[in-house]
Amino acid sequence: MSMFFDLFRRDPNIVYVEAGDCLFKENAESDGMMYVLLSGSADVYLNNVHLEIIQAGAIVGEMALIEHRALRSATVQAITRCGFVAINEKRFNFLVTEAPQFAIEVMRVMAQRLRATDKALDLCNN
Amino acid sequence: MSMFFDLFRRDPNIVYVEAGDCLFKENAESDGMMYVLLSGSADVYLNNVHLEIIQAGAIVGEMALIEHRALRSATVQAITRCGFVAINEKRFNFLVTEAPQFAIEVMRVMAQRLRATDKALDLCNN
Repeated sequence: MSMFFDLFRRDPNIVYVEAGDCLFKENAESDGMMYVLLSGSADVYLNNVHLEIIQAGAIVGEMALIEHRALRSATVQAITRCGFVAINEKRFNFLVTEAPQFAIEVMRVMAQRLRATDKALDLCNN
Repeated sequence: MSMFFDLFRRDPNIVYVEAGDCLFKENAESDGMMYVLLSGSADVYLNNVHLEIIQAGAIVGEMALIEHRALRSATVQAITRCGFVAINEKRFNFLVTEAPQFAIEVMRVMAQRLRATDKALDLCNN
Protein backbone atom coordinates (compact mmCIF):
# COMPACT_ATOMS: atom_id res chain seq x y z
CA MET A 1 0.00 0.00 0.00
CA SER A 2 1.15 3.54 -0.62
CA MET A 3 2.60 6.08 1.77
CA PHE A 4 -0.66 8.04 1.48
CA PHE A 5 -2.68 5.10 2.76
CA ASP A 6 -0.39 4.73 5.76
CA LEU A 7 -0.54 8.45 6.55
CA PHE A 8 -4.32 8.78 6.41
CA ARG A 9 -5.77 5.35 7.20
CA ARG A 10 -6.80 6.37 10.72
CA ASP A 11 -8.39 9.65 9.68
CA PRO A 12 -11.92 9.72 11.09
CA ASN A 13 -13.36 12.06 8.44
CA ILE A 14 -14.23 9.84 5.49
CA VAL A 15 -16.24 11.07 2.50
CA TYR A 16 -18.11 8.19 0.84
CA VAL A 17 -18.97 8.14 -2.85
CA GLU A 18 -21.40 5.46 -4.08
CA ALA A 19 -20.66 3.28 -7.12
CA GLY A 20 -21.38 5.20 -10.31
CA ASP A 21 -21.29 8.59 -8.60
CA CYS A 22 -18.51 11.13 -9.17
CA LEU A 23 -16.22 12.58 -6.52
CA PHE A 24 -15.82 15.50 -8.93
CA LYS A 25 -16.16 16.23 -12.62
CA GLU A 26 -13.81 17.88 -15.10
CA ASN A 27 -14.30 21.65 -15.27
CA ALA A 28 -16.53 21.61 -12.19
CA GLU A 29 -15.84 24.15 -9.48
CA SER A 30 -13.25 22.88 -7.00
CA ASP A 31 -13.65 22.75 -3.22
CA GLY A 32 -9.86 23.22 -2.95
CA MET A 33 -9.35 19.73 -1.52
CA MET A 34 -7.02 16.90 -2.45
CA TYR A 35 -8.45 13.43 -1.75
CA VAL A 36 -6.80 10.22 -0.60
CA LEU A 37 -8.65 7.04 -1.57
CA LEU A 38 -8.80 4.66 1.40
CA SER A 39 -11.23 2.04 0.11
CA GLY A 40 -12.87 1.06 -3.17
CA SER A 41 -11.77 1.83 -6.71
CA ALA A 42 -12.56 4.59 -9.19
CA ASP A 43 -12.06 5.57 -12.83
CA VAL A 44 -10.21 8.75 -13.82
CA TYR A 45 -11.25 10.42 -17.07
CA LEU A 46 -9.74 13.34 -18.93
CA ASN A 47 -11.56 14.77 -21.94
CA ASN A 48 -13.67 11.59 -21.93
CA VAL A 49 -10.50 9.53 -22.28
CA HIS A 50 -10.08 6.86 -19.60
CA LEU A 51 -6.72 7.57 -17.97
CA GLU A 52 -6.50 5.12 -15.09
CA ILE A 53 -8.22 3.07 -12.40
CA ILE A 54 -7.26 4.19 -8.90
CA GLN A 55 -7.18 1.93 -5.86
CA ALA A 56 -6.76 2.45 -2.12
CA GLY A 57 -3.71 4.62 -1.46
CA ALA A 58 -4.14 6.80 -4.56
CA ILE A 59 -4.46 10.59 -4.46
CA VAL A 60 -6.65 12.74 -6.70
CA GLY A 61 -7.48 16.41 -6.91
CA GLU A 62 -3.99 17.64 -6.10
CA MET A 63 -3.94 19.87 -9.20
CA ALA A 64 -6.62 22.30 -8.07
CA LEU A 65 -5.08 22.48 -4.59
CA ILE A 66 -1.56 23.19 -5.84
CA GLU A 67 -2.62 25.68 -8.49
CA HIS A 68 -5.38 27.38 -6.50
CA ARG A 69 -7.46 26.77 -9.56
CA ALA A 70 -11.18 27.02 -9.48
CA LEU A 71 -11.83 24.13 -11.85
CA ARG A 72 -11.15 20.40 -11.64
CA SER A 73 -8.84 19.02 -14.32
CA ALA A 74 -10.31 15.49 -14.47
CA THR A 75 -13.36 13.38 -13.59
CA VAL A 76 -13.23 10.76 -10.81
CA GLN A 77 -16.09 8.24 -10.90
CA ALA A 78 -16.49 5.49 -8.30
CA ILE A 79 -16.50 1.92 -9.66
CA THR A 80 -17.30 0.49 -6.21
CA ARG A 81 -18.26 2.46 -3.10
CA CYS A 82 -15.24 4.64 -2.29
CA GLY A 83 -14.01 6.15 0.96
CA PHE A 84 -11.90 9.31 0.62
CA VAL A 85 -10.07 11.53 3.11
CA ALA A 86 -10.19 15.23 2.15
CA ILE A 87 -6.95 17.22 2.61
CA ASN A 88 -7.16 21.01 2.58
CA GLU A 89 -4.31 23.35 1.68
CA LYS A 90 -3.30 24.06 5.25
CA ARG A 91 -2.88 20.37 6.00
CA PHE A 92 -1.16 19.79 2.67
CA ASN A 93 1.42 22.52 3.36
CA PHE A 94 1.96 21.14 6.86
CA LEU A 95 2.67 17.68 5.41
CA VAL A 96 5.07 19.06 2.79
CA THR A 97 6.96 20.88 5.55
CA GLU A 98 6.99 18.08 8.11
CA ALA A 99 7.27 15.07 5.80
CA PRO A 100 9.47 15.77 2.76
CA GLN A 101 8.79 12.22 1.55
CA PHE A 102 5.13 13.21 1.23
CA ALA A 103 6.14 15.99 -1.20
CA ILE A 104 8.37 13.65 -3.21
CA GLU A 105 5.54 11.10 -3.39
CA VAL A 106 3.05 13.71 -4.65
CA MET A 107 5.58 14.69 -7.32
CA ARG A 108 6.00 11.05 -8.30
CA VAL A 109 2.23 10.67 -8.77
CA MET A 110 2.14 13.85 -10.87
CA ALA A 111 5.05 12.58 -12.97
CA GLN A 112 3.20 9.31 -13.60
CA ARG A 113 0.10 11.27 -14.64
CA LEU A 114 2.20 13.39 -17.00
CA ARG A 115 3.63 10.23 -18.57
CA ALA A 116 0.13 8.78 -18.94
CA THR A 117 -1.17 11.96 -20.58
CA ASP A 118 1.92 12.12 -22.82
CA LYS A 119 1.20 8.56 -23.92
CA ALA A 120 -2.43 9.40 -24.70
CA LEU A 121 -1.24 12.41 -26.68
CA ASP A 122 1.25 10.25 -28.55
CA LEU A 123 -1.49 7.75 -29.48
CA CYS A 124 -3.75 10.59 -30.53
CA ASN A 125 -1.12 12.14 -32.81
CA ASN A 126 -0.13 8.87 -34.47
CA MET B 1 11.71 36.16 -11.76
CA SER B 2 10.92 32.77 -10.27
CA MET B 3 11.98 31.29 -6.96
CA PHE B 4 14.26 28.92 -8.88
CA PHE B 5 16.18 31.81 -10.39
CA ASP B 6 16.69 33.37 -6.97
CA LEU B 7 17.85 30.08 -5.47
CA PHE B 8 20.41 29.23 -8.15
CA ARG B 9 21.50 32.52 -9.71
CA ARG B 10 24.85 32.49 -7.91
CA ASP B 11 25.63 28.88 -8.72
CA PRO B 12 29.08 28.77 -10.34
CA ASN B 13 28.51 25.58 -12.31
CA ILE B 14 26.71 26.65 -15.46
CA VAL B 15 26.12 24.35 -18.42
CA TYR B 16 25.84 26.31 -21.67
CA VAL B 17 23.80 25.14 -24.66
CA GLU B 18 24.24 26.99 -27.96
CA ALA B 19 21.27 28.24 -30.00
CA GLY B 20 19.74 25.37 -31.97
CA ASP B 21 21.35 22.68 -29.81
CA CYS B 22 19.37 20.47 -27.43
CA LEU B 23 19.87 20.19 -23.68
CA PHE B 24 18.26 16.76 -24.04
CA LYS B 25 15.94 14.91 -26.40
CA GLU B 26 12.79 12.92 -25.78
CA ASN B 27 13.49 9.23 -25.11
CA ALA B 28 17.21 9.90 -24.77
CA GLU B 29 19.03 8.42 -21.81
CA SER B 30 18.84 10.72 -18.76
CA ASP B 31 21.79 11.91 -16.70
CA GLY B 32 19.44 12.06 -13.70
CA MET B 33 19.65 15.84 -13.46
CA MET B 34 17.01 18.53 -13.24
CA TYR B 35 18.04 21.84 -14.87
CA VAL B 36 17.30 25.44 -13.92
CA LEU B 37 17.46 27.89 -16.82
CA LEU B 38 19.37 31.02 -15.75
CA SER B 39 19.78 32.80 -19.09
CA GLY B 40 18.43 32.52 -22.62
CA SER B 41 15.25 30.89 -23.85
CA ALA B 42 14.38 27.42 -25.16
CA ASP B 43 11.57 25.45 -26.80
CA VAL B 44 10.02 22.39 -25.16
CA TYR B 45 8.63 19.70 -27.46
CA LEU B 46 6.64 16.59 -26.66
CA ASN B 47 5.93 14.09 -29.45
CA ASN B 48 6.97 16.81 -31.91
CA VAL B 49 4.26 19.08 -30.47
CA HIS B 50 5.55 22.45 -29.29
CA LEU B 51 4.49 22.71 -25.65
CA GLU B 52 6.06 25.93 -24.40
CA ILE B 53 8.91 28.44 -24.54
CA ILE B 54 10.90 28.57 -21.32
CA GLN B 55 12.71 31.63 -20.00
CA ALA B 56 15.16 32.31 -17.19
CA GLY B 57 13.81 30.86 -13.94
CA ALA B 58 12.19 27.81 -15.56
CA ILE B 59 12.98 24.22 -14.58
CA VAL B 60 13.18 21.23 -16.91
CA GLY B 61 14.07 17.58 -16.54
CA GLU B 62 12.41 17.14 -13.16
CA MET B 63 10.46 14.10 -14.40
CA ALA B 64 13.43 11.80 -14.89
CA LEU B 65 14.88 12.88 -11.54
CA ILE B 66 11.67 12.28 -9.60
CA GLU B 67 10.82 9.00 -11.28
CA HIS B 68 14.37 7.65 -11.49
CA ARG B 69 13.55 7.02 -15.10
CA ALA B 70 16.19 6.31 -17.63
CA LEU B 71 14.55 8.25 -20.46
CA ARG B 72 13.74 11.93 -20.95
CA SER B 73 10.06 12.74 -21.42
CA ALA B 74 10.50 15.84 -23.62
CA THR B 75 12.95 17.69 -25.87
CA VAL B 76 14.51 21.00 -24.80
CA GLN B 77 16.09 22.99 -27.66
CA ALA B 78 17.86 26.33 -27.13
CA ILE B 79 16.42 29.28 -29.07
CA THR B 80 19.23 31.57 -27.89
CA ARG B 81 22.37 30.52 -26.00
CA CYS B 82 21.16 29.10 -22.68
CA GLY B 83 22.84 28.79 -19.29
CA PHE B 84 21.56 25.99 -17.05
CA VAL B 85 22.37 24.88 -13.51
CA ALA B 86 22.25 21.09 -13.07
CA ILE B 87 20.62 19.76 -9.88
CA ASN B 88 21.25 16.15 -8.91
CA GLU B 89 18.95 14.03 -6.75
CA LYS B 90 20.91 14.58 -3.54
CA ARG B 91 20.65 18.35 -3.88
CA PHE B 92 17.01 18.11 -4.95
CA ASN B 93 16.11 16.08 -1.86
CA PHE B 94 18.02 18.51 0.34
CA LEU B 95 16.05 21.42 -1.12
CA VAL B 96 12.71 19.65 -0.66
CA THR B 97 13.62 19.01 2.99
CA GLU B 98 15.05 22.43 3.79
CA ALA B 99 12.81 24.62 1.63
CA PRO B 100 9.22 23.33 1.48
CA GLN B 101 8.36 26.22 -0.85
CA PHE B 102 10.77 24.72 -3.36
CA ALA B 103 8.73 21.49 -3.34
CA ILE B 104 5.45 23.39 -3.73
CA GLU B 105 6.93 25.36 -6.62
CA VAL B 106 8.10 22.20 -8.42
CA MET B 107 4.57 20.80 -8.00
CA ARG B 108 3.12 24.00 -9.43
CA VAL B 109 5.31 23.72 -12.53
CA MET B 110 4.30 20.08 -12.96
CA ALA B 111 0.63 21.02 -12.59
CA GLN B 112 1.02 23.68 -15.29
CA ARG B 113 2.68 21.12 -17.58
CA LEU B 114 -0.16 18.66 -16.93
CA ARG B 115 -2.70 21.36 -17.85
CA ALA B 116 -0.75 22.16 -21.03
CA THR B 117 -0.60 18.49 -22.02
CA ASP B 118 -4.30 18.07 -21.20
CA LYS B 119 -5.07 20.98 -23.47
CA ALA B 120 -3.00 19.50 -26.31
CA LEU B 121 -4.84 16.20 -25.80
CA ASP B 122 -8.17 18.00 -25.87
CA LEU B 123 -7.28 19.73 -29.15
CA CYS B 124 -6.11 16.43 -30.59
CA ASN B 125 -9.33 14.63 -29.69
CA ASN B 126 -11.64 17.34 -31.00
